[in-house]
Amino acid sequence: MSQEEAEARFFEAQMPNADVQPLFDEARKLGIGFYLGYAELTPEGRPYNTAILVDKSANIVGKYRKVHLPGHVDHKPDAPFQHLEKKFFDVGDRPWGVWDTLGAKIGMALCNDRRWPETWRVMSLQSAEIVVLGYNTPSQNIHWDEPVHLRMHHHLITLQASAYQNCVWAAAAAKCGREDGFHMIGGSVIVSPTGEIAAQASTEEDEVIAVQADLDLAKAFRQNVFDFARHRRPEYYQLIVDRVGPGEPLKS
Amino acid sequence: MSQEEAEARFFEAQMPNADVQPLFDEARKLGIGFYLGYAELTPEGRPYNTAILVDKSANIVGKYRKVHLPGHVDHKPDAPFQHLEKKFFDVGDRPWGVWDTLGAKIGMALCNDRRWPETWRVMSLQSAEIVVLGYNTPSQNIHWDEPVHLRMHHHLITLQASAYQNCVWAAAAAKCGREDGFHMIGGSVIVSPTGEIAAQASTEEDEVIAVQADLDLAKAFRQNVFDFARHRRPEYYQLIVDRVGPGEPLKS
Repeated sequence: MSQEEAEARFFEAQMPNADVQPLFDEARKLGIGFYLGYAELTPEGRPYNTAILVDKSANIVGKYRKVHLPGHVDHKPDAPFQHLEKKFFDVGDRPWGVWDTLGAKIGMALCNDRRWPETWRVMSLQSAEIVVLGYNTPSQNIHWDEPVHLRMHHHLITLQASAYQNCVWAAAAAKCGREDGFHMIGGSVIVSPTGEIAAQASTEEDEVIAVQADLDLAKAFRQNVFDFARHRRPEYYQLIVDRVGPGEPLKS
Repeated sequence: MSQEEAEARFFEAQMPNADVQPLFDEARKLGIGFYLGYAELTPEGRPYNTAILVDKSANIVGKYRKVHLPGHVDHKPDAPFQHLEKKFFDVGDRPWGVWDTLGAKIGMALCNDRRWPETWRVMSLQSAEIVVLGYNTPSQNIHWDEPVHLRMHHHLITLQASAYQNCVWAAAAAKCGREDGFHMIGGSVIVSPTGEIAAQASTEEDEVIAVQADLDLAKAFRQNVFDFARHRRPEYYQLIVDRVGPGEPLKS
């Protein structure tokens, strides 16, 4: 399969398109907004790992292109499967956004983004109340012999800590089951601003989870322990933007 | 009690001093390094919530002054007790540091710092391998009617997620039991870079917890999922230093 064929097969040049139009139609009929992830090919030919936010009238109101691309660009002959996000996608062209829609301020992330605290902070600093994301996480780590239970553990602790630290509701949807024979974790969750799991999928089949999310639950956190305006100290955070990777200790 | 008397009573103008000299002496005799938190009064009369790192020869090799001061400056007549860190201490005069001592690169934080992801990131960007901190956390939240179980939950999820996200061992020591009649949580823990609790205090009495911390355990994380140099995107993190509190969404 050539690069062109692969792109024609796996990438979406238009959104919505005929394949997903039934989803948009049904959602409009039911008055339900949604988040959708897909491989985007722009008119300029740039490939992104993209998510959109769709309102109750089936209008696309927000778009996010994945910033934290995991994996590698080279073929790894010894790996059981490849993790080629860095090969097939460009890094997103802007930071995480927040949109006022569906009665809330909603931010979007994608998969590996959830492991990075910067992702969440950039959205909470835009007053996000809900963060939504999708993920495909294999239970096997191809890079080293990681105990498989840790994959779910890392997913849950980062979601819980990040929802708490950023005073947001977080909703994360797994594509689970098997892909090319390899198992992928489930664990779709909705986490409250208390850092507690409010709902969690209990199977690896198609499943709907839902909560009545009280957006005011975050207020006490935002006004006290996480009153950013009173407590944050950006003058001491400079290293977060000045350095990419680890370096020498600061002079003390 | 006047301000001067309070300071004379609660603050340390010298470190070590006669009160803690026996601790330094015993540690030197045993060849054990340690972390110690105290209220510091500088020669210039500035009050800080301070921690020091002491090597096996009882030399003070590092000092950190708390950045994220929680609480309030005013007397709250309706509160069961006061949380006056913002009144009695100045904000620390420098970011978190990392010191190469005791066979590891060790960073220090204090109490409320652990809830802020920036704390951990600034240390991991200085190549920290271990982060140590002490905390005094009342089980009752005086600001709102928070379920008491959440105090321990927030402590543990932030420690676990932060150790994982920053590829460090984290050691957190509680001052627990009762203070002025009010209960304070225990939950002293040592968390591994996998985000798992390697040791946790099981009582609220004096207790020693210890692990053989394999510093290389973090290597696989640092070289793959959290290879900062390949994966971090500081160009999209600018809001973390540009804004103190939440604001409008970025234009998309």
